Amino acid sequence: MVVGELAYERDVIVIGGGPGGYHAAIRAAQLGRNVTLVEQNQLGGICLNKGCIPSKILTQSAEKFTSFQEGENWGLEAGDISFNADKFQQYKQTKIEQLRSGIEALCQANKIEILNGSAFFLSEDKVGIENGDKFDVFRFKNAIIATGGRPEKPLWARQISDRVLDQHSISDLSEIPDKLLIYGSDYIALEIGMAYQALGSKVTLILDDGKEEFDFDQSICRELKRILKKKKIDVVRNSDVLELQRMDDMLTVTFTLTGKIDTISGTHLFVSTPIRPNTNQLGLSRIGVEQCAAGYIKVDYQSRTTQNHIYAIGDVTEGPALAVKAIKQGKTAAEAISGIKSESDFHFIPVVAHTQPPIASAGLTEKEAINMGYDIEIGQFSLSANGFSTLTGKKEGFIKVISCKEKQVFLGIHMVGTGAIELISAGITALEMAARDEDLIFPNYPHPSVNEGLLEAVEALRNQAIHIPPKSLKAQKIKV
Amino acid sequence: MVVGELAYERDVIVIGGGPGGYHAAIRAAQLGRNVTLVEQNQLGGICLNKGCIPSKILTQSAEKFTSFQEGENWGLEAGDISFNADKFQQYKQTKIEQLRSGIEALCQANKIEILNGSAFFLSEDKVGIENGDKFDVFRFKNAIIATGGRPEKPLWARQISDRVLDQHSISDLSEIPDKLLIYGSDYIALEIGMAYQALGSKVTLILDDGKEEFDFDQSICRELKRILKKKKIDVVRNSDVLELQRMDDMLTVTFTLTGKIDTISGTHLFVSTPIRPNTNQLGLSRIGVEQCAAGYIKVDYQSRTTQNHIYAIGDVTEGPALAVKAIKQGKTAAEAISGIKSESDFHFIPVVAHTQPPIASAGLTEKEAINMGYDIEIGQFSLSANGFSTLTGKKEGFIKVISCKEKQVFLGIHMVGTGAIELISAGITALEMAARDEDLIFPNYPHPSVNEGLLEAVEALRNQAIHIPPKSLKAQKIKV
Repeated sequence: MVVGELAYERDVIVIGGGPGGYHAAIRAAQLGRNVTLVEQNQLGGICLNKGCIPSKILTQSAEKFTSFQEGENWGLEAGDISFNADKFQQYKQTKIEQLRSGIEALCQANKIEILNGSAFFLSEDKVGIENGDKFDVFRFKNAIIATGGRPEKPLWARQISDRVLDQHSISDLSEIPDKLLIYGSDYIALEIGMAYQALGSKVTLILDDGKEEFDFDQSICRELKRILKKKKIDVVRNSDVLELQRMDDMLTVTFTLTGKIDTISGTHLFVSTPIRPNTNQLGLSRIGVEQCAAGYIKVDYQSRTTQNHIYAIGDVTEGPALAVKAIKQGKTAAEAISGIKSESDFHFIPVVAHTQPPIASAGLTEKEAINMGYDIEIGQFSLSANGFSTLTGKKEGFIKVISCKEKQVFLGIHMVGTGAIELISAGITALEMAARDEDLIFPNYPHPSVNEGLLEAVEALRNQAIHIPPKSLKAQKIKV
Repeated sequence: MVVGELAYERDVIVIGGGPGGYHAAIRAAQLGRNVTLVEQNQLGGICLNKGCIPSKILTQSAEKFTSFQEGENWGLEAGDISFNADKFQQYKQTKIEQLRSGIEALCQANKIEILNGSAFFLSEDKVGIENGDKFDVFRFKNAIIATGGRPEKPLWARQISDRVLDQHSISDLSEIPDKLLIYGSDYIALEIGMAYQALGSKVTLILDDGKEEFDFDQSICRELKRILKKKKIDVVRNSDVLELQRMDDMLTVTFTLTGKIDTISGTHLFVSTPIRPNTNQLGLSRIGVEQCAAGYIKVDYQSRTTQNHIYAIGDVTEGPALAVKAIKQGKTAAEAISGIKSESDFHFIPVVAHTQPPIASAGLTEKEAINMGYDIEIGQFSLSANGFSTLTGKKEGFIKVISCKEKQVFLGIHMVGTGAIELISAGITALEMAARDEDLIFPNYPHPSVNEGLLEAVEALRNQAIHIPPKSLKAQKIKV
């Protein structure tokens, strides 16, 4: 194999075909660039093949399962309801393949060359792409690094691999765990926990890193406490995990809790852990692309690395490991390459959990706002007083808005409840447009709808939510 | 009965306890008024007891029924699924009573006096309230008329009452019609049609007044054509109904279609017709409250009638017979009474249909915008290319934005698809805040979500939707 003998010429090389990578490639092609997209596994990346998509198929299935069980109230009668894991896996696989071939077709329609192989930088303007015994060299004007990340289990969870699952391997689980232990405090831990609980697992959540709470606004954490208790999902808080052992079909986690040693056992353990950037094989040091101590590639608001013509997007850069971030950075990078001055801004990035009920959140939490020195006002509306939530029987949850007293603009919007994920975009639009309370009070909201809960949360800021009794409105104000 | 002997003194009398009335009463009480709310039937009015709420319980139930039938794909197995109409009626009744007692409790908490009886004006500052042989006189500073409306069947549909249902009586139907004929072209006709089709009825829609299309944007009508065909719901367009006959258990509608006479038969007929204002018994002419020719009470943007201290809201005023309008007018009237200068504006009132899939619409349709002389641009995104819609299998529908070419602000947003009703509030917020395309392109949208469809519809305006192939993007532009 002789390196560098003949180099193909390309405008843009995108390394990694996950959501960030393929969005970047298509936007660059739309803007007239000649683009090659390199993927070493499967188009769509972790998000489509192992992460977001399969996990949402799981949560949707779990939600349907719950809905079936509640059907009798509505006059819907059926025999015993059961979950066929094989059929579910088939459905999942069909959908993933459908979406993957969609991406492939889009790339083709945009005249993007797709290469299978692993890429690394040979110099500041060349990458080598290796696939088996095939090796090609490409010279590029611009490169976009979108190689994603991988979950890194804590040391104690690495010794035993059987039945110890992470964000990437959980999607292939083809059985319903009898007793599922979950280590984590993020939206993924909650999604997986609630989905398997709905499908029949006995679930225990162990908050990671000795935490007291989940990674959400304190009101959401309070509501979660209630919801998890009702679902009989146990939560172990403030604990330090010491070790994991396996005996026959059981895994046992040993941890300390307020100084005492305790254990908990389960048939499976799911560990939702930080994502580490996939940068090792890229040869970054060779070409002057700087990384921070934790390994993330340093980028500016246009996703430009310390080498001006090379960009990095998604999980290889710092920030939440969310596809929405990768997508935005990908489009921004492609536009920057094409001379368009767009930028990525993640102040109001949505964090959503497809839990039962779902959670959707954007902007500052109450604690963050206070810590940043804001004098805040809070409006909160419980969905138990919302007409639509009442008629559907999905009365759990609330909508909370956090507003800056001085400037009267919204700082954060947090929702728990059926419909929250779709509704959060109204909140995000308001946040991004620096809306004031009147901007959300003036519009008309469909009736009956959960949307009216957003209106009433904002009205609560002014003591004028219709479906909150006067005393509770006053109490809300005194609390803040 | 001696009228006027002793008059009770009140700040505000609200006549009618539907959504408009009780919102007005509570807002007035929040603002310190002494309020009496008069209702002759049941609190919550038609909306809660006969209209919006029961119809949404029906549509939700139908949606669940469909979801059950699709469950097997997802690995959810159950025996034969059936619909128990009695249990459904029980559920419906429980929910209505729950919501009604909620309104009652809220009124009490706000120290609102609730009177049962029918009210009419004795003079410009006095109403009489009659309940059986009890009669009381109240002197008021302000009155709010919120007596609602009633559906008025066309003449040919009035002769036979058995099995001929309207918006108010359909909710008590305690069987699934074998063959349901529907006369109407509005959201209610579609909701009822699709719900009963899902529950097993053979449904035929006869567009009212000889119409060619439903009351939505032309793209929605096109999508509806496809969806209704797939559901085997027949649609009779451009027809003039001549008469209705009954023989045994069958109703037969005779109509002319392109000059020829034709008939169609069904076991039940549902007629979704215009709502006429309930004003006859109020004695309005006595006190100088003017009505237009069709009987609606004339009001300004604060819902003030031609008598400055008397307000009218909801279905007794002109405009769409929607609870959202009544609610907004009710709050505006209560605020105006209390010296607050708020106003109602219905340019961007949402019209939603809880169909399968749902429809949500706000602002101008394409045709309206063109007729008003706007030079428009259109961005449209099919949910068949949306990741979340694909994984849930709910791929029907689209999102369409209509933008003014000159000023680059949005004029209308139209959606068909699962999640549309919650998502429309993002569109409405954008419309109300005079957002430009960049205001909806800049924010982050959760991934995967139907919300991303809104982003891509806006991106399509700029030829840069990621999940639309270049040729289709160009074709969209050429079409406009």
